[in-house]
Order: sequence, then structure tokens, then C-alpha cells
Amino acid sequence: MDPAAVHLALLARGETVACAESLTGGELAAMLSGTPGASATFLGGVVSYATAVKQSVLGVPAELVEKHGVVSGECAAAMADGVRSLLDADWAISTTGVAGPDSQEGKPVGTVFVGVAGPSGVQVTQLALHGTRSQIRHETCNRGLMALHEGLS
Amino acid sequence: MDPAAVHLALLARGETVACAESLTGGELAAMLSGTPGASATFLGGVVSYATAVKQSVLGVPAELVEKHGVVSGECAAAMADGVRSLLDADWAISTTGVAGPDSQEGKPVGTVFVGVAGPSGVQVTQLALHGTRSQIRHETCNRGLMALHEGLS
Repeated sequence: MDPAAVHLALLARGETVACAESLTGGELAAMLSGTPGASATFLGGVVSYATAVKQSVLGVPAELVEKHGVVSGECAAAMADGVRSLLDADWAISTTGVAGPDSQEGKPVGTVFVGVAGPSGVQVTQLALHGTRSQIRHETCNRGLMALHEGLS
Repeated sequence: MDPAAVHLALLARGETVACAESLTGGELAAMLSGTPGASATFLGGVVSYATAVKQSVLGVPAELVEKHGVVSGECAAAMADGVRSLLDADWAISTTGVAGPDSQEGKPVGTVFVGVAGPSGVQVTQLALHGTRSQIRHETCNRGLMALHEGLS
């Protein structure tokens, strides 16, 4: 999905977005900031690659991580809520999952959770993606943009 | 510069890195996290695209921004120090500058500052880059990786 479409949809509503990324590692932010004029709608994001950063910066509770793991819908929801609040954005997208090459928390490569937080709450989509590490990261970004675009329409 | 070389240099020292990005908007984090096994050395980062995020999340002082602007060596140094401390990393890379298409703070497109913070302090490199928005962003990431690699050698 073209990030420019998301930018224009946000611009039409006068709203902003932030992102919290784990497996995509900054690629989603790079897409959101790639459009000229992006600063009108994109505030920034947190790349919470390490679990400790999810907790200390985004405020994901340690008990949540202990109970559900970081590759979970619960973690995706907490990351989206956390960055939306931290950056004071109208909307937030989060990504967490297993890009590979190794499985994680007993979950196979391609297990991905995408969260979208907005004025009326947070919604999480679970995906089972195929492909290389790079393809899984890229498709996760794509699905995140699609989920936000849907929320905006 | 191949991010894998930076990853291996950090791995050999048992050290970690974080990043704080403005104009590169997540692309540097995406490069640092792109290498399989990156989680052993890359903790994460903050994409502080909006000035408010530089202040509220990274702790860049408002007076610094007022005096020097966000396109400044002072801001790059404060961003690198800020994210290194926030994520408790051994090293940090920061990027701030003008990717275009418009100039900013009276500074022409291609004006870029790259900071590297480490155990012995922070060093800032000022660049005047040419090219498209996308080329300037990419070359900034490249210079950031080179500066860190030099600091590690």
C-alpha cells in the first residue's frame, strides 16, 4: 500500500500518526516518513527491538510479557496504545512478530501481530506470513498501512 | 556501508547500539535491524520526526532548539546522548538535517548532522549532501554507520 494514501487520508482529517515497531525494526517509520510533506501527519515512532525497550519506553507491562510473550496480540495492542500516548498522536500502528530466521517464543517464522490504535480504541490483526525475513518485514509494514487506512475510511 | 559489518564489530566487543533519527525517519533503524541476529547488538531507537518528540522522548532541551534549531550539531549531539541513555545502550547514532524538498530553518537541502555517542563521549559530523530526498536520507544512514564503525575500530 502506498504510504502517500495514508498521509493524504490523515491530512484530510487533520490527524497524526505514530508507530511502535518490533520485527519491522524501523521500516514502517521509514515508509511513513518517506512521502514529501510527511511531517504534517507523521510524528515519529519507537523501534522497540529489545523487550526491555517495549517495557521501559512504551510502557508494556512486564506481567503482560511474562503471560503472553512479546509475539502476541496483547503486546501489539499495548505497544500501539503506548506509542500513541507517548507521542500524543491521534493514531498509532504497532508491529510485533517473528521475521526469522529462527522461531521465537515457540511461534513459527511469519507469525505477526499488527495493532492500530485510534480515538475509539485499539484493533489487532494476526497474520501468518510466508517468505524471507525481508519479505515478512515488508509485508508486515504493508498490512499495517492497510489496517490504518481502513480505520481512517 | 554494510550494516552487518557494524553488527559484527559490536558483537566482537559485546556492546549494543541504539539510534535517534530525524530526517532518516526510521531507515537507519531498519538497516541496523535488517541483519539476521541483529537483536544481539541492536536495542532499538526513537524516530523523533516532530520537534516535540525530540524534546519529550529524547530530552533535547527546548532552549537548545530555540538557540540552535533542530538542524544543528548541538541537536544531533543531544539526540545521540538522549537515546543512548533512554535505551541504556553502549553506543548511539543520531541523524538530523534537511532531506527536502524544502529548506528548513534557513538551511539548504542536504545540510545534515550525524552524531555518534559512546563510552568516551559524543562526536558530530556535519555534511553537505547532494541528491534527491531519498538519496540524502540513504547517504545519511550510510555516513552514520561509517561513523559508528570508525568509533568501534
